[in-house]
Amino acid sequence: MVEAEPTALAPGFRAAGVACGLKSDGGTDVGIVACDAAAEIGSALLLTRNAAAAAPVRVCRERCDGASIRAAVVNSGNANAATGEQGYADAVAMQERCAAAIGVEAAAVAVAETGTIGVPLDVDRVLDGIDRAAASTGPAGGADFSAAIMTTDAGPKRCCITAGGVTVSAQAKGAGMIEPGYATMLCFVQTDAVVSDPDRTLRGAVAESFERITVDGQMSTNDTVLLQATGASGLPLPDGVLEAVLLQLALAIVADGEGASRVGRIEVRGAAEPGEAERVARAVANSPLVKTALYGRDPNWGRIAQAAGQALAGADIGELGPERVDADELGGDGPEAGLSIDLGRGGASAHVFFSDLTHDYIRINAEYTT
Amino acid sequence: MVEAEPTALAPGFRAAGVACGLKSDGGTDVGIVACDAAAEIGSALLLTRNAAAAAPVRVCRERCDGASIRAAVVNSGNANAATGEQGYADAVAMQERCAAAIGVEAAAVAVAETGTIGVPLDVDRVLDGIDRAAASTGPAGGADFSAAIMTTDAGPKRCCITAGGVTVSAQAKGAGMIEPGYATMLCFVQTDAVVSDPDRTLRGAVAESFERITVDGQMSTNDTVLLQATGASGLPLPDGVLEAVLLQLALAIVADGEGASRVGRIEVRGAAEPGEAERVARAVANSPLVKTALYGRDPNWGRIAQAAGQALAGADIGELGPERVDADELGGDGPEAGLSIDLGRGGASAHVFFSDLTHDYIRINAEYTT
Repeated sequence: MVEAEPTALAPGFRAAGVACGLKSDGGTDVGIVACDAAAEIGSALLLTRNAAAAAPVRVCRERCDGASIRAAVVNSGNANAATGEQGYADAVAMQERCAAAIGVEAAAVAVAETGTIGVPLDVDRVLDGIDRAAASTGPAGGADFSAAIMTTDAGPKRCCITAGGVTVSAQAKGAGMIEPGYATMLCFVQTDAVVSDPDRTLRGAVAESFERITVDGQMSTNDTVLLQATGASGLPLPDGVLEAVLLQLALAIVADGEGASRVGRIEVRGAAEPGEAERVARAVANSPLVKTALYGRDPNWGRIAQAAGQALAGADIGELGPERVDADELGGDGPEAGLSIDLGRGGASAHVFFSDLTHDYIRINAEYTT
Repeated sequence: MVEAEPTALAPGFRAAGVACGLKSDGGTDVGIVACDAAAEIGSALLLTRNAAAAAPVRVCRERCDGASIRAAVVNSGNANAATGEQGYADAVAMQERCAAAIGVEAAAVAVAETGTIGVPLDVDRVLDGIDRAAASTGPAGGADFSAAIMTTDAGPKRCCITAGGVTVSAQAKGAGMIEPGYATMLCFVQTDAVVSDPDRTLRGAVAESFERITVDGQMSTNDTVLLQATGASGLPLPDGVLEAVLLQLALAIVADGEGASRVGRIEVRGAAEPGEAERVARAVANSPLVKTALYGRDPNWGRIAQAAGQALAGADIGELGPERVDADELGGDGPEAGLSIDLGRGGASAHVFFSDLTHDYIRINAEYTT
């Protein structure tokens, strides 16, 4: 497995990013990623389960063929969430404009948006941006595309890996409102490998990457993960490659969590069943007392025991003392802390990566204005 | 309904608080509250459901007759949680020493402890304190008792109300690790009213007070609420008096939440059923994005919609726009903010009071050392 230039795209894909004026700083904010016209495409599209899902998510649910997505059109700076019928119509217009510009069916175009909730979209600017982006897509457009999907991210999140004769490239964004539903943010993945069941493959890889992270326990209204596979290489996707790509991007999101200074990894062992292990791991990872201990470098294992006990309220788990809770690295010097707890109830385990809760998190979110 | 001197005790009760040396500042840290020897007592004892419950909670579960508790013995400065077999034995010793000192059966003495988790209890100091406290209990001891149960509280939380010829007095503590299980902190309630079903009466009042608040979403290992009723007045408890007493103390706990500068009240209407209303209210009340918006006085209704949508993940609730989310007071000048959301799914409603998430919360919890 070899890491290529992180902005590279898998063969058979092209992308672009342009500035249409949604971002007040003039940054790129409209992007398109698409497979070549000749490519045969298999795809999978995972969307947030948030009941207050944004317009583009509902357009994807209702007007896309998730198994044959040829292109994704994305804007940042406006989430187009809680924007009413006009917002839905705007997302449909984005889908149709992109489809027309690159010459595919509208149902083959996924729409994703990210940014502020509840602000009407300046759709004319976006549609103009789509025209310009569509006209400029190319195999070197990965850098502009990954910049065009950023919001509060400290930097672009992208990677490209080659293995077994195939290439997997991916671009992601996300820093706040991060807690898995299906996915947790925006992520676009391209490959020339043969992927016989893209949906199952993507769900499996997401379960071990984006489903394993949390920043603030808040499931977004706009989460979207898209996998596009052309099969042009004629070769299968080697085991672990997609997982490695998505895990790298997922960890980049946690490390770039709003205000984050450290990353923790809580491993729960000895659970009665996998769901229980995951519930306890999430409770620990989202506890503000554990997250402030991670920030303050305080090896306070009692807070881990308390959070686990809350997740198992009413159960009999005996005493969760220091012989069963390893919190030493909470107090360490490193940027990461590996933590574990043994529930002593069975053989199931689960882990979650999480960021700390810091003064910068408060500053960012108390000062961020609608 | 008349408020009496808040440190007063209901007739037929006596209390005391002494310093035994658990608190490094020499503050009072051992307290006893008991009914007079001649009193007939009916009682109810509610305990945390946290599976990592502290030793005193397990002693109460296993060795107390919750319906006829004559006295409670409490220490602050050490939670006696995750302290192993020795911790359990220490809590039993506290129960037995208090019972002997005041001349009642051990099963009639509730034990409560609060403070740091995971530190062995200096039980000899506590037992000495129990002897001294038992020797000094009196009808004027409410002030010392309520001071003896404090930990990070900014001040004592106590109140006394007379109504319909009866008196209800209560003392509570709590600032962090506040999220309802059964109860959320320590609270002791005394009355000379006739209470025919203390358990049902207490559960009903707790459901509308301590069950309606959150500071940090963290269910404590030590929560305990005790109601003691002698019936000596021969008069019934007027409707609403116990509820008023407990709500006053519950709101004092939220207002004194760790680092809190403002209190929010989220009202969820139009839910399909009460459990759904409560789930959504708790999701909003515990969202760090809503809590930082409360701190930053940002009327960001999108964060309320997002949290509600997460709590209802997978459901179809239509658009949660500003016509259904009232977040105006988030941005107001006042110390309190009344917020509401209408789910449009039915006729059920629920509300939760919550504190904001501030720099002081981070400071307190990142700098607090085990």
